[in-house]
Amino acid sequence: MFHDRPIFPRGFRCASRNIGLKPTAKDLALFVSDVDAAAAAVFTRNQFPGAPVLLGRETIRGGRLRAIFANSKVSNVATGEQGLENARRMAAAAAAEVGSTPDKVLVSSTGVIGVRLPIDIIERGVKGMAADLGDDPIVGAEGIMTTDTHPKALSLDIGDATITWVAKGSGMIEPNMATMLVYVFTDAAVDAPTLDRLLRRAVDVSFNMLSVDSDTSTSDTCAILANGLAGPVDEGAFLEALTAGSIRMTETLARDGEGATHLLRTTARGARNLADARRIAKSLVNSPLVKTMVYGADPNVGRILMAVGKCVECTIDRNTTDAWINGHPVLRNGYRLDFDDAVVREALGSEVVDIVVSLGVGSAEATAYGCDLTQGYIDENAAYYSS
Amino acid sequence: MFHDRPIFPRGFRCASRNIGLKPTAKDLALFVSDVDAAAAAVFTRNQFPGAPVLLGRETIRGGRLRAIFANSKVSNVATGEQGLENARRMAAAAAAEVGSTPDKVLVSSTGVIGVRLPIDIIERGVKGMAADLGDDPIVGAEGIMTTDTHPKALSLDIGDATITWVAKGSGMIEPNMATMLVYVFTDAAVDAPTLDRLLRRAVDVSFNMLSVDSDTSTSDTCAILANGLAGPVDEGAFLEALTAGSIRMTETLARDGEGATHLLRTTARGARNLADARRIAKSLVNSPLVKTMVYGADPNVGRILMAVGKCVECTIDRNTTDAWINGHPVLRNGYRLDFDDAVVREALGSEVVDIVVSLGVGSAEATAYGCDLTQGYIDENAAYYSS
Repeated sequence: MFHDRPIFPRGFRCASRNIGLKPTAKDLALFVSDVDAAAAAVFTRNQFPGAPVLLGRETIRGGRLRAIFANSKVSNVATGEQGLENARRMAAAAAAEVGSTPDKVLVSSTGVIGVRLPIDIIERGVKGMAADLGDDPIVGAEGIMTTDTHPKALSLDIGDATITWVAKGSGMIEPNMATMLVYVFTDAAVDAPTLDRLLRRAVDVSFNMLSVDSDTSTSDTCAILANGLAGPVDEGAFLEALTAGSIRMTETLARDGEGATHLLRTTARGARNLADARRIAKSLVNSPLVKTMVYGADPNVGRILMAVGKCVECTIDRNTTDAWINGHPVLRNGYRLDFDDAVVREALGSEVVDIVVSLGVGSAEATAYGCDLTQGYIDENAAYYSS
Repeated sequence: MFHDRPIFPRGFRCASRNIGLKPTAKDLALFVSDVDAAAAAVFTRNQFPGAPVLLGRETIRGGRLRAIFANSKVSNVATGEQGLENARRMAAAAAAEVGSTPDKVLVSSTGVIGVRLPIDIIERGVKGMAADLGDDPIVGAEGIMTTDTHPKALSLDIGDATITWVAKGSGMIEPNMATMLVYVFTDAAVDAPTLDRLLRRAVDVSFNMLSVDSDTSTSDTCAILANGLAGPVDEGAFLEALTAGSIRMTETLARDGEGATHLLRTTARGARNLADARRIAKSLVNSPLVKTMVYGADPNVGRILMAVGKCVECTIDRNTTDAWINGHPVLRNGYRLDFDDAVVREALGSEVVDIVVSLGVGSAEATAYGCDLTQGYIDENAAYYSS
């Protein structure tokens, strides 16, 4: 179902380049549809959104996009009126380059907060990018990387249409998205209101359940463009594919969380209601002590109870709480089971660690996605600004 | 006001020893009042409290204590009915040793979760401790250490009476206490209901605002014993002293958070209400990106806005949000100020880092206490169980 190598749906192309915001790595990316596309987007809930998010909320109201234009290294956050003006200039520069109008260009900026966007360099830098446009989504993904260790893109087919995700992570991811930029492109014909509805449903169980460090970026953006060149698709099948690909990309982002060595998936099932299930799954995936337990492959499984129990607002019954690590039972009825340490240690050593908690007080279920907490995270974040 | 070296109030003594739960370090502590003391206590809000907490809630209803008996290394959490029975046996063993009854002995256990308490060793181990009782609070503090780097005790006088705190940290501290054990001893005459009321007020602005890693222990306990040997005190002065000492001990615990190299104090002022102020102060003190900024002495101050802005339920006005680091203005009206990097870097390098955010939307204020996030935290917690 997923392509081995990501491809673009009909009518989408991209380009990226280095314009000197970073020493040598690519720092500018342009994604273009040959024709106007129906579009929807969701943004960070952080109360200090970046200028691109403020502008993006305005732009997306039109429900149509022709291009996405993004830079890395500087996030254009906490930059006031000048920042908003610079975001508008970015949109105008890209529109001029691709022969569209600024109201059909979504802009993103990712990187350090509180530093003025070098807009002149970006305006000069975008010139000629239309001539570079090609059909490899990975090229676009390269232009939006910050601390990501690799560019991220994936594709799957749904009938005659294709859906392609291009994204970057990789810290400050939670609870309602990340310094996460996710762009979804499809040639399916779906109108903007429907896209909006389906995107929110898919994001709710994927990107919104991703947490690398419990911090919430000021720049998170997830946008979808549907240019219709492949014609209509079945809505149910489309939602299913959109959700599956979004979960796959969520896992890709979690795996590449700053310093991560494990993908950590935490599931709360048998919860009283969905809010409880989501909260408990998030508490598990965010707990520094659970995360370091996974990093150390150390079966100190009482930390699972601790992370569940600290959700003081949730309905929890000590006598019906069970837990498994990669299928191995470790807690039953609130007790630590007398398991074989070596077996659980080995389970914790696998690249994907699934912690499942069954609460026994209802039927709601939710899964959260994250990673372990390692020295690498500290190293990256103790001097991110300077680097 | 604070003693250079902690002393016990009249009529309190303690002892500690190694009984083999740890290889060589002390692992058992006994605190005794010569006479029954009025007592109050608050415990963790975690929904998987340890057996000692379950028993402690029952014991403290009597409002009188003669002794506190604690072991380190094993926490007696997630150990079911057998765990509760073992906690009762601990209380009975200590009561027999000091010539009291089990209902006047508060027990604590701190250490690994989910491992059965070696109760036989503890019962044997307490024998003869009454003969060891001495007047140095540090000796008792030594017996309850887990990952603490030093024993913690402090004293201050209030009129003719003394108040002494003995405590241990140092991870899993938040949001409504820690694997934090705090025992407060005073010879002031205060009745149990008053103690309970004053203790809750003092804890609310001190230990409950302490957060090392956002995890909440299953064993947190803060108890106060007042044996009355110094006679009555002014209630207002007593509360003031109780609060001041509790804040001082909170800072001591934060400083010794796992891997900590800085004491981080975060204050939210000008908040709409106290709940907002507390939530924003906690968000700042818990943010991994703020904590690593402090560790790296890296003035990436946009992270302060991020941590404030992620409190999506709080009233925040982007245009009135200011911030200071150790008195240096770094944000004004939601903008990053054009400050001298070297100066702020130096401010971040001092052992105590105060981040103050003024929200400009009200008059409520709260301060939270924590520490930076370092490689040391990861090292300690990736293999805590095994060590």
